Amino acid sequence: MDPAALAKALNTAWTLLTAFLVFFMQAGFAMVEAGFTRAKNAGNIVLKNLMDFCAGTVAYWAVGFALMFGASLAGLVGTSGFFVPQRLPSVDWTGLDTQTFWMFQVVFAGTAATIVSGAMAERTRFSSYLLFSFLMAAFIYPVVGHWVWGGGWLSRLPVPMKDFAGSTVVHGVGAWAALAGCLLLGPRIGRFTHTAFGPSGTGNGNGNGGLQGHSLTLAALGVFILWFGWFGFNPGSTLGIAGDLAGLAARVAVNTNLAASTGALAGLFLAKLHTGKFSVGSALNGALAGLVAITAGCAFVGNGAALVIGLLGGAAMYYGTLLLERWQVDDAVGAVPVHGFAGAVGTLAVGLFDQETGLLYGGGFGQLLSQLVGVVAAFVWVFSLSYVAFLLIRAIIGLRVSTEEELRGLDLFEHGVVAYPDFTSPAPHAPSAPQAPRAAAQASLPTGQPAAGW
Amino acid sequence: MDPAALAKALNTAWTLLTAFLVFFMQAGFAMVEAGFTRAKNAGNIVLKNLMDFCAGTVAYWAVGFALMFGASLAGLVGTSGFFVPQRLPSVDWTGLDTQTFWMFQVVFAGTAATIVSGAMAERTRFSSYLLFSFLMAAFIYPVVGHWVWGGGWLSRLPVPMKDFAGSTVVHGVGAWAALAGCLLLGPRIGRFTHTAFGPSGTGNGNGNGGLQGHSLTLAALGVFILWFGWFGFNPGSTLGIAGDLAGLAARVAVNTNLAASTGALAGLFLAKLHTGKFSVGSALNGALAGLVAITAGCAFVGNGAALVIGLLGGAAMYYGTLLLERWQVDDAVGAVPVHGFAGAVGTLAVGLFDQETGLLYGGGFGQLLSQLVGVVAAFVWVFSLSYVAFLLIRAIIGLRVSTEEELRGLDLFEHGVVAYPDFTSPAPHAPSAPQAPRAAAQASLPTGQPAAGW
Amino acid sequence: MDPAALAKALNTAWTLLTAFLVFFMQAGFAMVEAGFTRAKNAGNIVLKNLMDFCAGTVAYWAVGFALMFGASLAGLVGTSGFFVPQRLPSVDWTGLDTQTFWMFQVVFAGTAATIVSGAMAERTRFSSYLLFSFLMAAFIYPVVGHWVWGGGWLSRLPVPMKDFAGSTVVHGVGAWAALAGCLLLGPRIGRFTHTAFGPSGTGNGNGNGGLQGHSLTLAALGVFILWFGWFGFNPGSTLGIAGDLAGLAARVAVNTNLAASTGALAGLFLAKLHTGKFSVGSALNGALAGLVAITAGCAFVGNGAALVIGLLGGAAMYYGTLLLERWQVDDAVGAVPVHGFAGAVGTLAVGLFDQETGLLYGGGFGQLLSQLVGVVAAFVWVFSLSYVAFLLIRAIIGLRVSTEEELRGLDLFEHGVVAYPDFTSPAPHAPSAPQAPRAAAQASLPTGQPAAGW
Repeated sequence: MDPAALAKALNTAWTLLTAFLVFFMQAGFAMVEAGFTRAKNAGNIVLKNLMDFCAGTVAYWAVGFALMFGASLAGLVGTSGFFVPQRLPSVDWTGLDTQTFWMFQVVFAGTAATIVSGAMAERTRFSSYLLFSFLMAAFIYPVVGHWVWGGGWLSRLPVPMKDFAGSTVVHGVGAWAALAGCLLLGPRIGRFTHTAFGPSGTGNGNGNGGLQGHSLTLAALGVFILWFGWFGFNPGSTLGIAGDLAGLAARVAVNTNLAASTGALAGLFLAKLHTGKFSVGSALNGALAGLVAITAGCAFVGNGAALVIGLLGGAAMYYGTLLLERWQVDDAVGAVPVHGFAGAVGTLAVGLFDQETGLLYGGGFGQLLSQLVGVVAAFVWVFSLSYVAFLLIRAIIGLRVSTEEELRGLDLFEHGVVAYPDFTSPAPHAPSAPQAPRAAAQASLPTGQPAAGW
Repeated sequence: MDPAALAKALNTAWTLLTAFLVFFMQAGFAMVEAGFTRAKNAGNIVLKNLMDFCAGTVAYWAVGFALMFGASLAGLVGTSGFFVPQRLPSVDWTGLDTQTFWMFQVVFAGTAATIVSGAMAERTRFSSYLLFSFLMAAFIYPVVGHWVWGGGWLSRLPVPMKDFAGSTVVHGVGAWAALAGCLLLGPRIGRFTHTAFGPSGTGNGNGNGGLQGHSLTLAALGVFILWFGWFGFNPGSTLGIAGDLAGLAARVAVNTNLAASTGALAGLFLAKLHTGKFSVGSALNGALAGLVAITAGCAFVGNGAALVIGLLGGAAMYYGTLLLERWQVDDAVGAVPVHGFAGAVGTLAVGLFDQETGLLYGGGFGQLLSQLVGVVAAFVWVFSLSYVAFLLIRAIIGLRVSTEEELRGLDLFEHGVVAYPDFTSPAPHAPSAPQAPRAAAQASLPTGQPAAGW
Repeated sequence: MDPAALAKALNTAWTLLTAFLVFFMQAGFAMVEAGFTRAKNAGNIVLKNLMDFCAGTVAYWAVGFALMFGASLAGLVGTSGFFVPQRLPSVDWTGLDTQTFWMFQVVFAGTAATIVSGAMAERTRFSSYLLFSFLMAAFIYPVVGHWVWGGGWLSRLPVPMKDFAGSTVVHGVGAWAALAGCLLLGPRIGRFTHTAFGPSGTGNGNGNGGLQGHSLTLAALGVFILWFGWFGFNPGSTLGIAGDLAGLAARVAVNTNLAASTGALAGLFLAKLHTGKFSVGSALNGALAGLVAITAGCAFVGNGAALVIGLLGGAAMYYGTLLLERWQVDDAVGAVPVHGFAGAVGTLAVGLFDQETGLLYGGGFGQLLSQLVGVVAAFVWVFSLSYVAFLLIRAIIGLRVSTEEELRGLDLFEHGVVAYPDFTSPAPHAPSAPQAPRAAAQASLPTGQPAAGW
């Protein structure tokens, strides 16, 4: 067999297998988001995670891939390959078949879309969210992707902006859309009225205040799955492993692992420092923040820099969570601090630590400036477009569920189901509406008055 | 190093890694089945999932592999390679070592066996089930496998029957055995006497009526794991990736992802249409049905056809679930609609959408007819043999647990354990028999009279 | 492309992908350990699993890798490559880049470290444990690793000691450190005072007596994940797949699967024999014991021997659990029987079943003797060093939490959190300290008197 054909086959195997790992991150997001929110909304959360990927798959197949990797219109957007994905030779340097390349790209689009669901959890209408996730995968995400990875204007800057696996292109995009959604939705009932159970309000790092998530074990499982999947996300972004790519993929994997570790350590010890407790939530989100932060630079920096970038990501997550709390922005799982703030820090860090062009390696300010341009451009595009999209959705079909639905749970009203009927006692005198113990207590309060026990 | 040896090594790596993904589907089945059934039987469910794979491994090593891939006796059954697996050159076109080939095949046998456990959940004796799963992996499954993949008569039809990764060979086989078991067992107590909690009776798509599963999050996790594992199941069925197989594997992966997505969308929107709710269970089972349906044709059809086949699979699951309800057949997790009905639809769809021989592509009716013959033959063999096997097991050691055991949970009686002792309150006056809140309420009823509150 | 470069790329892909699978075992350990312990400590457990890997990563990057694979000082310890991992050509026969090799090794170090956490669960101070896990990955584990895999004295014996993937080097090391910790900690309150709920005390195989774990489904999920990850652990230890390694990797995979299956069968039927119940815990730990046992010999023995070794591992786990109970050593999840006893049996079994040097294959007693030397040496080094380390930690910062903290849960005191606030009712008159139903009952008892209801 021809060695060139073998190299292509090997690159295909690598790209497909890492794409499968990236797909599995959907399970991680589902578990993190369900674990960090309440049992009465658990069915809603997992269904949103499932369906945004399904809607996103169809949207990206029909439209998104073409906008991202089609023939470029002035560096702004792709214009070819709708409904029949076609790869332009210019955008894939390892010569993969289009189907292989599409498979890797669709799981990235799905990741960007699903980040939004966690932040807006526990009060968003299901159909509104599903519609937005279609728009995200069809249009909002692919345009930024085109700018950086599809041959667009950010890749044509004098010093091209560098985002190896998507600290900004994927994670930033998800986070800024989530921020727009949170601002328009407003906080969950009880989120900023009371902080219960000691220090968890500010210290658990998942931005929940007194509204504690219903399962720390599922949240932890989700983080392990995400970390595992990230070994597809970052090393797989080499799009191959033949030749020099082998060494590159290995370095990417090691850097990913190092940054995740120091991100978790930062989350753990910052919480200990500020609250006196080793916060589980802060450590979990710290690991994710370290992963997000290293995603842009994992192929460009050394091991030592990776350790530092993980620390910076964890710190960005921790203080960013406090900042959102101060602003009374309710991000139910900490998606904005984890994917947005840590993503921005990681993207900028390339300008410092890149071994060829970074400021600390004698490369001057050019790379740092390009990184800043990229971060700002992505924010402006995604935030403003998402804000408008959510405004339109709110005007036409509504964005937030009713107060009664929010108090008694989205599962019951939107989905006609109870996620854990064996663990939650039926509310007295309301046999048709089973409730969690906590929810039951709330339901007996006048709804105009926030529950003091939260 | 010799390029031919490299190609073999690459094919080996691909086959082993995808086999590992297929193994992981066992975790997915365990979580789906546990999540869709009640807490009092959760230990029983996961143990059955574990042990059917273990018993199946031994059975398939000793007997099953020989019957499936041994020298063919008139196209009916293999006859060589017992206890020391040996591969006949005729059955593996990529030249893998026998150990590699066996590793990939044993996880398929395990999949067929484990499908049965969910349908018969919550009332089957553990030892009876374990015995059946041994028979399944040793004999029932391998014979069908021989017909299609081992050089048997279905592969020798004028137009050979096509089932790339096992819509019928694996999923149909599991489902028809499950159907035989469900018919002989009868429904769980309370399954068809009452439908509680609003629309979930007909709309949740997992065939549980009022007997709701105890954890939607675990069920969702299971579906994500299964989808992930399916990327081993289907793309791995190329048995290699060198040369032209690279492009084929990529197409298989993309088709798998597309059909899973449209299957879930079909499940979601059919439930919304018929019940007014976005059913979580119907979407979850819809994704699985899409995966099952595309399994036969993933290597033979285009992306557009994959989208359609997923929709058909989801619809087959949804309406099939309603059909079983009307017939009062109690399939506790919807295994028959998901693996049987969607599998049959997917197998037949090859006759329509195959790009070389399909009816819609000018291939005439030959392929469709062969597909129909294959579906019917597998059904007749598996259903009748399983029916007889379950009859014998029932006569000799019994098939169903006692009414008291069913009401209070199989975990307590068969396994001496409570799956969640911290979440379920002990029943009053019965400290030695801890119960879920719901189970406790039931236990205080006269056992002859079905619980009205279910 | 040059075939030799392709072979290296293929070996790199194999090594990285299997390393990712090994990483995922961390999720498996977290779920097994959380599932086998109580809800009031679930946050603590998962945090320990996460953080020991993070601390271990940094420790192994800075120090451990150098001690394990650096230039050897008299076969005792490595001495080069601190802070900048460097691979000596002598220790890696497939020519991987250092970053690739390090990635595979760090996940092994993390496995050894995390084994300790389960045994010492539910009563160890978090900071003390975290400190020990740093020492483990930095020093205790790498020294044994050097002896066997780094060119140290055990690999220089007249008949070199053989431990292909670490029955002793990884699992034994983790278990003997865990044993030292358990002895110094003493048993959990209530562990040996009462056995509740029928036969589970001696029969569930996870060594918990009356202190049942809070989630059998999570425990089962963990076992499936571990089994899946073990397909990285054992087959990946080939460090490549080009050439003859392809056949070897396949045999390793098959043997791993066979032994896991018979290990589970042994656990299941031994419990049935002794207690009359099909114990879920015993089957789960049996599968793990089978996996641990085959880890040393998977590359050296035939399929039949693998079946036997799995049975031996399962039996060692079962009777070892009873032995620890008799000695009143409280290993909360059965880590010592699973990783220590089954690991020792599996290591010794190489001396019997090795197809070149085993006693039963005409190789005489040499291999068996070397295996025995290796098992004893690892035990002496790890147990004594860990004992001293825990003694020092106890003297300086304390090892065990207070009685009140143990009774009410480590989550509340160390982490300020409740793992499942929606499933556990607040204790009467103690709104700031939510409790599981069972824990609430305990808290109202005089603490000097063991709870009768356990």
